[in-house]
Amino acid sequence: MSKNDSRSGEERLKEAYEELGALQRTFRIRQIPAIIVVEGWNASGISDTIATLLQGLDPRGFDFHALGRPGEEDRAHTFLRRFWVRTPAHGRIAIYARSWYSRALAEKIRGTEWEKRLDRAITSIKTFERQLADDGTLILKFFLQISSEEQRRRLVAREKDPLTSWMITRNDWDFHHLYDELTPVIRHIREATEEPWAAWHIVDAEETAVASERVLSTVIERFRAHLDTGGSAPLRAHAPLPPLPSSASPIDTVDLSLSMSRHDYDRVSPECQARLRACQYSLYRRKVPLIIVYEGWDAAGKGGSIQRLVRSMNPRGYAVVPVGPPSSEELAHHFLWRFYLRFPPAGDIRIFDRSWYGRVLVERVEGLASEHQWQRAYREICEMERAYVESGGGLIKFWLEIDAETQLKRFRERETDPSKQWKITEEDWRNREKREQYERAVREMIARTHTPSAPWTVIASNSKHHARITAQRAVIDYVNDLI
Amino acid sequence: MSKNDSRSGEERLKEAYEELGALQRTFRIRQIPAIIVVEGWNASGISDTIATLLQGLDPRGFDFHALGRPGEEDRAHTFLRRFWVRTPAHGRIAIYARSWYSRALAEKIRGTEWEKRLDRAITSIKTFERQLADDGTLILKFFLQISSEEQRRRLVAREKDPLTSWMITRNDWDFHHLYDELTPVIRHIREATEEPWAAWHIVDAEETAVASERVLSTVIERFRAHLDTGGSAPLRAHAPLPPLPSSASPIDTVDLSLSMSRHDYDRVSPECQARLRACQYSLYRRKVPLIIVYEGWDAAGKGGSIQRLVRSMNPRGYAVVPVGPPSSEELAHHFLWRFYLRFPPAGDIRIFDRSWYGRVLVERVEGLASEHQWQRAYREICEMERAYVESGGGLIKFWLEIDAETQLKRFRERETDPSKQWKITEEDWRNREKREQYERAVREMIARTHTPSAPWTVIASNSKHHARITAQRAVIDYVNDLI
Repeated sequence: MSKNDSRSGEERLKEAYEELGALQRTFRIRQIPAIIVVEGWNASGISDTIATLLQGLDPRGFDFHALGRPGEEDRAHTFLRRFWVRTPAHGRIAIYARSWYSRALAEKIRGTEWEKRLDRAITSIKTFERQLADDGTLILKFFLQISSEEQRRRLVAREKDPLTSWMITRNDWDFHHLYDELTPVIRHIREATEEPWAAWHIVDAEETAVASERVLSTVIERFRAHLDTGGSAPLRAHAPLPPLPSSASPIDTVDLSLSMSRHDYDRVSPECQARLRACQYSLYRRKVPLIIVYEGWDAAGKGGSIQRLVRSMNPRGYAVVPVGPPSSEELAHHFLWRFYLRFPPAGDIRIFDRSWYGRVLVERVEGLASEHQWQRAYREICEMERAYVESGGGLIKFWLEIDAETQLKRFRERETDPSKQWKITEEDWRNREKREQYERAVREMIARTHTPSAPWTVIASNSKHHARITAQRAVIDYVNDLI
Repeated sequence: MSKNDSRSGEERLKEAYEELGALQRTFRIRQIPAIIVVEGWNASGISDTIATLLQGLDPRGFDFHALGRPGEEDRAHTFLRRFWVRTPAHGRIAIYARSWYSRALAEKIRGTEWEKRLDRAITSIKTFERQLADDGTLILKFFLQISSEEQRRRLVAREKDPLTSWMITRNDWDFHHLYDELTPVIRHIREATEEPWAAWHIVDAEETAVASERVLSTVIERFRAHLDTGGSAPLRAHAPLPPLPSSASPIDTVDLSLSMSRHDYDRVSPECQARLRACQYSLYRRKVPLIIVYEGWDAAGKGGSIQRLVRSMNPRGYAVVPVGPPSSEELAHHFLWRFYLRFPPAGDIRIFDRSWYGRVLVERVEGLASEHQWQRAYREICEMERAYVESGGGLIKFWLEIDAETQLKRFRERETDPSKQWKITEEDWRNREKREQYERAVREMIARTHTPSAPWTVIASNSKHHARITAQRAVIDYVNDLI
């Protein structure tokens, strides 16, 4: 589509659409997800540019997103969560008219210390894009450039036209008057987020038709190049894992001999229950969401511990999320996607019975995730947890530790006690045979994800009473510290 | 748990919880979904009663719902949709603190003609519960009964207690003063919705502890009885299908020889596009949602027709929903559940590329649904469509008809044209061999679901140009009639 092209505009467009359609089909067949971000100055023609692009795409295979200000629900989360839950499934194309960039600009450049907040947003964005690119997503980012003078002309023209005047708000003029001031900020954001796997294309948009054709041809080139260079293979080289931290792991210091008598349990339990209920109410009033992750050996007592933890809580404010194997829809997304979907709303508690740590435990040991995938997951998990905590959420991670003998004893009890037989399956025995492999995975998981913002609490669980009260007290202490 | 029981209250409770836990596990293993509705007068102790029940349940296996007034989004739908999307998956228990009954009462008894609106709500509720029961859901409904005098005492007591005074609003007193007036209305609702598969249990709640124990023991009895009488087998006898209506089917009168030249198509197309865009804008301004269903033979041209239909529309206001085989999560719900999830928000257009009619087409012919299931589906679909249209939504259903020769010609073209080969699979040829079976299914589908509120538009599609313009004009005419 060079400018010397002798074909008519219509002919060129038709050919471009045919090629784009073919590329879209190839992406679908090869299950490659793609993200197309169109950003730009106000009145730079984002909608028209996207309209030109969409006409060449099969509408059954793309999702279009034009997200404005977040609603109350979204504001309770890190600002990227609403984009995380809208990432494209493998083989689909997601097109964003404005995106996390406009939101970062709109939400972060107000008030004091906005530069710090903006830099934190940039860090989150870089993480977000890197994680998606690592998962095989092609990311294209466009910025439609117009001059301040051209922007003024367009705003005036739209104000005069009765069909478009309602679209122009004071906000548009406010931003127009900030054009010069915003220019270096926007350039800084673009430069800070320029990566080989998430490159910016700055498009001269003084003429919308030219810009539209430019975006269309760039999409075609980038899609084609992505297929030529191996398609879904990630662009980034696989970095080796850093050595395991040498600091003491909380799993080394856990004292499995700790126990609690039934009598003591009955004595302290009522107070714990009352305080847990008070904790829930504090979280609710302060609109702080809390995630409690339960991981642990089979038969370590996760279910019983969860049941006692929520016993006195108000069911309006908590839910237990049982995590099993991912569904087909979940498998067609980044592995963290299904957890973002289940994050608690503001003031709510979500208890994850197993969690994203399945990636580095069962999926690692059973070979359900590739080595690259589970090795990458440590960093991805730490980044997600940190962003969640930094945005104000609470996060508690329990590892319920029992020794192999206790596990064996409980398995045998389950086999002989008719009321417990449902708890034991062939799989439990198979997993037990892999205890060594799992032990290695557990130790590495805790070593690599025991972070200042999201430390593990390892609970000695050979004694169920002791383990239950320990978990309840840990929640009480955490919430009291938090709020 | 009779009153003469000599065991202590604590002992009785413990035994009841053990039995309830065992029943919950059996329901999970047998994949039976259960719904427990707790309704009652204000201050009748709904929360406390449910709290007692929940303590005996594994929190990993239930979902608790306390839905108040609908938000803006939910108000754009029939009032049952927010409950439809929250029906329990197979093997799970959903507990509702107040439910569609309270919502019907709160939303329908205002303004003029409230009795008519209430009766329509009752009809929808009966349909909703029957469809879920037919799908194997156990439905339990409780009403906590207290006297007007007791209600007054409790409201006064709560107002005096600083911990609960904030909970009492003017609304509570308004409803209290309506106690006598509401009594016959509530009785009418209960009587009208009393069915063998959705029976009411009226519980004397003058003493909350007694009421809680009563609800708990009733749940246990009903769960046990459900297992004894065959578990997931539906309670309702399978009614034979009514004879096919003798009125002419639109598929008999379609003239497949209709065609349109490229020249005529190019001439009328621009105006259609402009009018479609105007239609979309009218729907948006009036906040009317529109569903367009595309069904038709393989190679009938659904994809191309959809692409031309949306070409000039604003992508902010439409989405295409490609419907494939249900996911594991979708299979664990009533077959209509996944479509309720994808209904358009107010003012939006959703185009379903295949739809719920898969139940009586591919699932019938390929044996993926039992005879009972697909035969029941005709009525279920008509009921859903009617409720949607009555609540103000627009619904257009297209059947794209081509004859067997045209299909064969297109299949062959697809095989030889490299740019079209992706469109043809082994499955298409297999389906073609079953043309007779599919023809029977199509004719029966149209005969049984061609209703006044949701008629089929059969589109002669041997000529693609003719078919595309016909579909576009049908949408334009429908929207212009609607608004």
